[in-house]
Amino acid sequence: MLKKISHLGMAVKDLEESREFYRSIFGLESSEPMIVGEGTMKVSLVEIGDAIIELLQPVGEEGVMAKFLQKRGEGFHHICYEVDDINTAIEAVKTKGMDVLGEPHQGAEGLVIFLHPRGTHGVLVELVEKNK
Amino acid sequence: MLKKISHLGMAVKDLEESREFYRSIFGLESSEPMIVGEGTMKVSLVEIGDAIIELLQPVGEEGVMAKFLQKRGEGFHHICYEVDDINTAIEAVKTKGMDVLGEPHQGAEGLVIFLHPRGTHGVLVELVEKNK
Repeated sequence: MLKKISHLGMAVKDLEESREFYRSIFGLESSEPMIVGEGTMKVSLVEIGDAIIELLQPVGEEGVMAKFLQKRGEGFHHICYEVDDINTAIEAVKTKGMDVLGEPHQGAEGLVIFLHPRGTHGVLVELVEKNK
Repeated sequence: MLKKISHLGMAVKDLEESREFYRSIFGLESSEPMIVGEGTMKVSLVEIGDAIIELLQPVGEEGVMAKFLQKRGEGFHHICYEVDDINTAIEAVKTKGMDVLGEPHQGAEGLVIFLHPRGTHGVLVELVEKNK
């Protein structure tokens, strides 16, 4: 069902400092920051091989990313797996007793959904069906 | 300097339960468990695309993985990037003011080293030069 790791989301306090870290230490460039999550996050993408590291900085003190940083500090936030067909994937995980959060919606790369973290062993999981 | 994401390490409480999770929910098989870390961990590898998820269960109450689980609970533990040459990579990160933990040593896939977590923005980073 899962094809590959599409991206890894990392919570960061200061996006520019983190972009500079990936550039200067690892030689990896990152995309220009964009505001996402209805204004609650700034994101910049670091390409590595055929995967992406998504650096996520909260904007303001509300929103899920701000709350995550307050509780857990900087570090891994979620993993996104690519699937062929998001509706088939959702049906499959539901059949196994897992829940999803909300409905699939259009993200930067395609249709996305998050699995309910209850039952994913501490790992927040996103699924994406890439735009064809 | 970094070629690709080689694997992601996940701390898990119960290796068999986690293997069953990846198998039944995502359809991903995992390798037979092996004892590693001088007897302090059991590991099983889940292949996904050209990356690997390394499921790590502590054995006993000592060892870094047991302490990680006690402190942080289940979830992401580290990310391992593949490099061409580990000594060149170590020199490069040291030149930028980063420290490494110990000396490069032989792991399952090749020569590995961990970067000192101070300064990696909350993400424990391993580097691997794969065996040729």
